[in-house]
Amino acid sequence: MQGTSQATAQSAAYTPTDRTVPTRSADRASYDRELVHSILDEAYVCHLGFVRDGLPVVLPTLFGRVGETLYVHGSTGSRPLRMTGRADPGLPVCLTVTHVDALVLARSAFHHSINYRSVVVHGMAYDVTDPEEKRTALDALVDHVVAGRSRDSRPADKKELAATAVIRLDLNEVSAKLRTGGVNDEPEDLALPHWAGLVPLRKGYEAPVDAPDLTPGIELPGYLREL
Amino acid sequence: MQGTSQATAQSAAYTPTDRTVPTRSADRASYDRELVHSILDEAYVCHLGFVRDGLPVVLPTLFGRVGETLYVHGSTGSRPLRMTGRADPGLPVCLTVTHVDALVLARSAFHHSINYRSVVVHGMAYDVTDPEEKRTALDALVDHVVAGRSRDSRPADKKELAATAVIRLDLNEVSAKLRTGGVNDEPEDLALPHWAGLVPLRKGYEAPVDAPDLTPGIELPGYLREL
Repeated sequence: MQGTSQATAQSAAYTPTDRTVPTRSADRASYDRELVHSILDEAYVCHLGFVRDGLPVVLPTLFGRVGETLYVHGSTGSRPLRMTGRADPGLPVCLTVTHVDALVLARSAFHHSINYRSVVVHGMAYDVTDPEEKRTALDALVDHVVAGRSRDSRPADKKELAATAVIRLDLNEVSAKLRTGGVNDEPEDLALPHWAGLVPLRKGYEAPVDAPDLTPGIELPGYLREL
Repeated sequence: MQGTSQATAQSAAYTPTDRTVPTRSADRASYDRELVHSILDEAYVCHLGFVRDGLPVVLPTLFGRVGETLYVHGSTGSRPLRMTGRADPGLPVCLTVTHVDALVLARSAFHHSINYRSVVVHGMAYDVTDPEEKRTALDALVDHVVAGRSRDSRPADKKELAATAVIRLDLNEVSAKLRTGGVNDEPEDLALPHWAGLVPLRKGYEAPVDAPDLTPGIELPGYLREL
């Protein structure tokens, strides 16, 4: 398993490949490791693509990250996890994460856009069979939802572990793509009578809601008050 | 092109197929047309999956909906659009949209989850060549970002139209999947000393930001004040 100590010895950027260099807007692409990690860590859901009977399938799923490895978990009965377990040497996947930051309203329809940050990971997914790596992965999945939460919940028991399949995908062939900044209108459109600008999307959390059957006296933990 | 008049004659639900019936949590699946439309219309970005050289690719992209048809646009140079233009009879795609509504923190790691709403569409993507359908699709793409915006912006000119490729995907093989409600802990875990409950994600918009070069006197339009 790759850990953080190994990651520090790596270069600051992923190596571009034919698949990770976009055919257009190449100036929006980045291979910076820290940027890629931050985009991944901010997302709750990734979109996992794989090929079944020659046809594409894209499913939303939770994930976690440990250094340069992503973990996806699910029921042992779910399709991509069953397929990975059977695949030798692994299942080709494409895992994509996207944040929408703002709507970009230009004077021209053509220049309407959104500000976004995305990461696309290509690679082979492998079934995680080592019990220790599986536990590490499941902790990472819980901590990906809320940092610090795995220490404040009951760990999976043997039955739950057996019912959960985990797959791993190493971060090797990876790119980020982002649009930031303002409106890019044509010079001849600037005098048009249309409003132009950005509409930022609201981010963050509403106040946590106690479970109705929460034991009286249990207070909201610090890692949730800090959200 | 399918329009709303045709849609009203259709049944209220999509017909489940082998691909749209999940292998697990089938109780979370829905084929309700109105629910599917509402999940699609609330999303800014979809994740478009296709197969290239036998391998999966998942790219985030803007989209629009007209009745029972989705439209995706992009530069004529972008990969999936080029591939669709060349594909006969069309390019097999899987288009997925996901909203994360709340983090679900259970007493057990195993029952951690998120409340979400997703739609998965399987089908063939076709290049849109009819000029009228292309214009309708581009209006739908702009209005998908902000309803009413296409009437308050300069429409694409000939050069812009020629530089834009549009593909269509009909809503036939479609399913929604959602998790709602509270924490599902095991009865024997209820007395554990861990906080449990929901953390709803904040939705909505921050105040619009005028473009720095906005013509003085142009006020924020009503369709943005209402957001």
